[in-house]
Amino acid sequence: MKRISILAAMVMAATTMMAQTAKKSFTLDDLMPGGSTYWNLQPQYMFSTWWGEKAVELTMDDVKEITKGNGRKVLFTSDDLNAALGEQQVRTCTQVAFPYAEQPIVKVQTPKEIILIDFVKKEVVWRGAIQEGASELVWNEQSRNMAYCIGSNVFVQLADGTRIQLTKDGNDDVVYGHSVSRDEFGISNGLFWSPDGQRLAFYKKDQSRIPSYPQVDITKRIAATYVDKYPMAGEESEDVSVAVFDVQTQKTVWLQNSKPMTDYMTNLSWAPDGQKLYVFELNRDQDFMQLFGYDAATGVKDSEPLIEEKHPKYVEPLHTLAFLPWDGSKAIMQSSRDNWNHLYLLDLKKKTYPEWREVAGGGTACDHVSVRLLTTGDFTVREFLGFNQKEKTALFIGNVTHPLHHTLHSVKVNGEKCQLLSAGEGVHTAILSASGAQLIDTYSSPTVARQVNLIDTKTGKSVNLLTAEDPWKDYNVPEITSGSIKAADGVTDLYYRLIKPVDFDPTKKYPTVVYVYGGPHAHNIQASRGYYFRGWEIYMAQKGYVIFVLDNRGSQYRGQKFEQVTFRHLGDEEMKDQMCGVEFLKSLPYVDADRLGVHGWSFGGFMTTNLMCTYPDVFKVGVAGGPVIDWRYYEVMYGERYMDTPQQNPEGYTSSCLLPKAKNLKGRLQIILGYNDPTCVPQHSFSFIRASIDAGTQPDLFLYPGDGHNMFGTDQVHLHERITRYFEDYLK
Amino acid sequence: MKRISILAAMVMAATTMMAQTAKKSFTLDDLMPGGSTYWNLQPQYMFSTWWGEKAVELTMDDVKEITKGNGRKVLFTSDDLNAALGEQQVRTCTQVAFPYAEQPIVKVQTPKEIILIDFVKKEVVWRGAIQEGASELVWNEQSRNMAYCIGSNVFVQLADGTRIQLTKDGNDDVVYGHSVSRDEFGISNGLFWSPDGQRLAFYKKDQSRIPSYPQVDITKRIAATYVDKYPMAGEESEDVSVAVFDVQTQKTVWLQNSKPMTDYMTNLSWAPDGQKLYVFELNRDQDFMQLFGYDAATGVKDSEPLIEEKHPKYVEPLHTLAFLPWDGSKAIMQSSRDNWNHLYLLDLKKKTYPEWREVAGGGTACDHVSVRLLTTGDFTVREFLGFNQKEKTALFIGNVTHPLHHTLHSVKVNGEKCQLLSAGEGVHTAILSASGAQLIDTYSSPTVARQVNLIDTKTGKSVNLLTAEDPWKDYNVPEITSGSIKAADGVTDLYYRLIKPVDFDPTKKYPTVVYVYGGPHAHNIQASRGYYFRGWEIYMAQKGYVIFVLDNRGSQYRGQKFEQVTFRHLGDEEMKDQMCGVEFLKSLPYVDADRLGVHGWSFGGFMTTNLMCTYPDVFKVGVAGGPVIDWRYYEVMYGERYMDTPQQNPEGYTSSCLLPKAKNLKGRLQIILGYNDPTCVPQHSFSFIRASIDAGTQPDLFLYPGDGHNMFGTDQVHLHERITRYFEDYLK
Repeated sequence: MKRISILAAMVMAATTMMAQTAKKSFTLDDLMPGGSTYWNLQPQYMFSTWWGEKAVELTMDDVKEITKGNGRKVLFTSDDLNAALGEQQVRTCTQVAFPYAEQPIVKVQTPKEIILIDFVKKEVVWRGAIQEGASELVWNEQSRNMAYCIGSNVFVQLADGTRIQLTKDGNDDVVYGHSVSRDEFGISNGLFWSPDGQRLAFYKKDQSRIPSYPQVDITKRIAATYVDKYPMAGEESEDVSVAVFDVQTQKTVWLQNSKPMTDYMTNLSWAPDGQKLYVFELNRDQDFMQLFGYDAATGVKDSEPLIEEKHPKYVEPLHTLAFLPWDGSKAIMQSSRDNWNHLYLLDLKKKTYPEWREVAGGGTACDHVSVRLLTTGDFTVREFLGFNQKEKTALFIGNVTHPLHHTLHSVKVNGEKCQLLSAGEGVHTAILSASGAQLIDTYSSPTVARQVNLIDTKTGKSVNLLTAEDPWKDYNVPEITSGSIKAADGVTDLYYRLIKPVDFDPTKKYPTVVYVYGGPHAHNIQASRGYYFRGWEIYMAQKGYVIFVLDNRGSQYRGQKFEQVTFRHLGDEEMKDQMCGVEFLKSLPYVDADRLGVHGWSFGGFMTTNLMCTYPDVFKVGVAGGPVIDWRYYEVMYGERYMDTPQQNPEGYTSSCLLPKAKNLKGRLQIILGYNDPTCVPQHSFSFIRASIDAGTQPDLFLYPGDGHNMFGTDQVHLHERITRYFEDYLK
Repeated sequence: MKRISILAAMVMAATTMMAQTAKKSFTLDDLMPGGSTYWNLQPQYMFSTWWGEKAVELTMDDVKEITKGNGRKVLFTSDDLNAALGEQQVRTCTQVAFPYAEQPIVKVQTPKEIILIDFVKKEVVWRGAIQEGASELVWNEQSRNMAYCIGSNVFVQLADGTRIQLTKDGNDDVVYGHSVSRDEFGISNGLFWSPDGQRLAFYKKDQSRIPSYPQVDITKRIAATYVDKYPMAGEESEDVSVAVFDVQTQKTVWLQNSKPMTDYMTNLSWAPDGQKLYVFELNRDQDFMQLFGYDAATGVKDSEPLIEEKHPKYVEPLHTLAFLPWDGSKAIMQSSRDNWNHLYLLDLKKKTYPEWREVAGGGTACDHVSVRLLTTGDFTVREFLGFNQKEKTALFIGNVTHPLHHTLHSVKVNGEKCQLLSAGEGVHTAILSASGAQLIDTYSSPTVARQVNLIDTKTGKSVNLLTAEDPWKDYNVPEITSGSIKAADGVTDLYYRLIKPVDFDPTKKYPTVVYVYGGPHAHNIQASRGYYFRGWEIYMAQKGYVIFVLDNRGSQYRGQKFEQVTFRHLGDEEMKDQMCGVEFLKSLPYVDADRLGVHGWSFGGFMTTNLMCTYPDVFKVGVAGGPVIDWRYYEVMYGERYMDTPQQNPEGYTSSCLLPKAKNLKGRLQIILGYNDPTCVPQHSFSFIRASIDAGTQPDLFLYPGDGHNMFGTDQVHLHERITRYFEDYLK
């Protein structure tokens, strides 16, 4: 009798398993953005943009106006464009743009040309050749002038095709027109057209005093170095200056130099009339910021700043000014002076008596013009979208409803209170119509794979354009949940993502891997699809692992104090919080505390190595990618913000350095790096390896020749196969 | 009854195990030359040298004459030397020398001085300061002149202390007085005193056309490259020339340049009277060698060569001329022209009619003076020791009795036949007395841990000075045997070493690791202690592995044809032979053919990687150290000898390149390299890693920052812990 019942149970179990295994399993190619089948398994998407106030859908073959009730009307096809061009130049319509709200003109950009086509008349209206070798290209739709770089020099090409070379002495040391300050402070480019396209501001970066990190290209016949200027913390850095070229006079003026105050010149903002250029200026210590205006015609600096901010830790300007379309004397500024990144209305003409006063973020501010906080509350403005010009509202995305949900809101610029425009849940992105009256909202949430909605920014009325099916419905998907625990300070809520193994059995104990980043300017948990899971986590859950991800203090969108708790001793508080996560994991009956692993990249590689060496009895296996090992080897701009210089903060640099910790290593730690990593240069990893050898410990190592700080394409798949194998070899 | 007998057997087995385990086990520190306890477990050694015809023993504290019947008489102590010096400069007497056969003078060299002390009078006879920063120092005992380099320039310091700078334009590109041709062709230094110390020959190396391989020093504040001129096969190489400085005239003359013939100028040999300098000259193709004499006073080249040799594969001059002490018109030359490296007597004054004729090695020779083969037979002269001046014999070490035994022999320079001087077994080294009448012979064999004997080079009569105890008598030592199998050609005997696991059980099947080198100029098996075992092999045997080592065709001391079978397609024949070894292993009942591993370094790293990728179903685990991956990345001198240039032999370079084979990898392969390897530059390993990533295979990698082609000291111990762990992880 008993035998039979066991047999019956086995048959039942087998049947259940059959039912489960009938669902498909993922490959790494399905789950990694670099994988060959990745895009097949993504929620359906819709390419869209605005033509004035008309929402349009962009497909490979055509462009359709989205009409009432989610209808479609074809505006033109790719064949139409190619017919107008007289040759087969357009392969997809997904990249076209509509620069003029009122005119039926579409902009097409090929590697060789920018072309404007009247899609009603089906004829070319204008075309401008792109000079061979041009980079950093910026085109102004009003003037139709182009600005670009050839190598380290700046060129302007007028609408009529006239080419003007603005600089001639550009080289590896002196670079014009490119981004500066290693893309920190919100800087991502080096050429800035005035709104009317008649003046061009551009950066000059003198990096002659910065040594080149010896990066090696092994693909040459004989391996050779190439130039990679890398300013290390506390060492020589670059000199930045800004010039303005005037198309009418063909003269270049330089903004009045105010060294040594202006170590960083960030977030260049043109006044609507192009007469003034505003610059957020920051000292090298990054604790004193001033917003200055410059006369664009002469380069003369205003006698006093508009805004000043100081903080005992750091100030970090990240956003340009956004002038009100209906009043060029007022602009929206973003600042974290009151702890959260908020919108402030600046009245540039309304002078105030400048007084230094304490602000909510822990620093001080001194406003020389009227400044008014528009968004209030314990949330962060993640993105400023623009204005509804008629309603005089500012539109933004912020985590207003919950720290993990980033929703759409409007706020009147006269200070009336916020209005929720989108669903109150999920993580949203949006593009605004020309007047700002409408927007196209794309979002996902743990229960919504993807939705695209057309939203009226006055009323919040919404029309659904797309509701994507769950692309994984045929797959055996692990359970993904989120929750919060208390940080090591006992007060702060920290959010986690927890992924259980596929075919989870609560009576079993599973090996568990903590995925970690932990650094500033990033977060790993938000209320988007699957709580912002990474594909590899699904793969690991499928292999029978619990995956746990916790955003510790120091991470993004939780306010300045939350971030700045790590100041001058990176790693310490972050690890304490991660250990709270470990305690939580140990409380879960299905987590095998004897089989804990950890994996992270970049700052997460620093955290992984640190955790492996600081808690050698907790973590058995780790994979640290592109790690920071010694902040002395990290760059000036990012590094000195959080650590000051090694000269100012020797204790902090010494105690956060992982080299002396190499001796503690007990478990299996594999360090992986891009051999040509220009961000966390190989000196980090190789120094740790050297320290380990000297200490008699045995980390493992792998590198990707030719790759930088991250791996893409098939290398990314290869990498995650490698990471998975390491846990399979040693944690199972 | 049966139960009891099993129990009894278990008790017996346990007792046996107790008895066995009572013996000690080795640590890696015991077995690796870099280990902290290595020297404690080496057979007893004796430091000795000659003072004229008196054998002396050198110890830390004193120097003793070895008197009749292995007696000892103290000549002086280190205290005596320090007393004479007036300060504590001598810490050990093991490094002193006796430059004058007839005088009681000992030479002491400190980092700052060369000092001659009369050890009877206990007073300093002469002292010469060593200039700070001096390298390549060569001192001539007749003139007491010193020659040395400071950086890339040559200096002479006369016995009276006068310093003369011979060259001034030395730099990274133009280097004087250092070794040339990357130490190939028997070259190991760049300064050559004439016998009387009145003329100095020195090399000039112009390497300005050779790029510097981008080697990176990560110990700098910001990692930086340093100069490492590396001429890759088929690419630009160095220009070598030779100058002679005359102490009397203080003039430097340059040897008449005969480019493009003299791409290599090797084995500089002074005539006894210092009037002539002989140079073995070789073309870049390395298939045409000429021996030329030059007038040392004028640099004028003789109108015709003394000797010429050609070979369709290659000619490789490796040894200087050795002039007969009693007749400066005759000299011993070593050559492999007749397949084996033999001694030839040259009569420089006896002209012959120069005719090209075929020689036994497969090439041709054209002798312009009388040449007479002294040593005949199928053996190799491993080392020419010198002459017994009275008996007019040449003394040498060669594998006369058996390919694995390297014994001591004499041969009359008038051509009478060889005489065995030492034991007919084992591997011997020897140092000769001033007249050559006696020698001190040190040897070991599979049954002799170490013996030191004083041998009369006329009679072969021997006095035993030391018979070392087995240093491992308290240890549990694995069985080491040797034997031979047939090569892949079915004819040639190949010798192997086989190490069985400690506590070997013939009924078990053991994981087995093949250790391999396989390249030219090296051998792994000889009849010295433990058949020339490497300490790591003992460690692995202790861990339960069978270790197998086979010297394939292409390796050392087996004649030129044996070596040259690999010409233009390195790896092919070598692997075929290693696979014969695998077949042999598979015939052994205790070898587990499903658990075969392979490990090798340098050429052996090339072989390991090649075997893993060519026979992916045979080898499960491999560790390849500092491998050659693509012979295009290897150097001109060694590489072109065996492969010609990539331009001449594109098929050979392509078929021997391991990059396309990366896709075949199935087992676990770890590549390990010195990050600063100047021999097999990192481009080899990193290119293979890149190729593997592209092919989707997963080798492992480790590197030793700061280390070169090999690891020493504690790094060597760390390395072998690492290699062992890899086999333990994946082969067990």
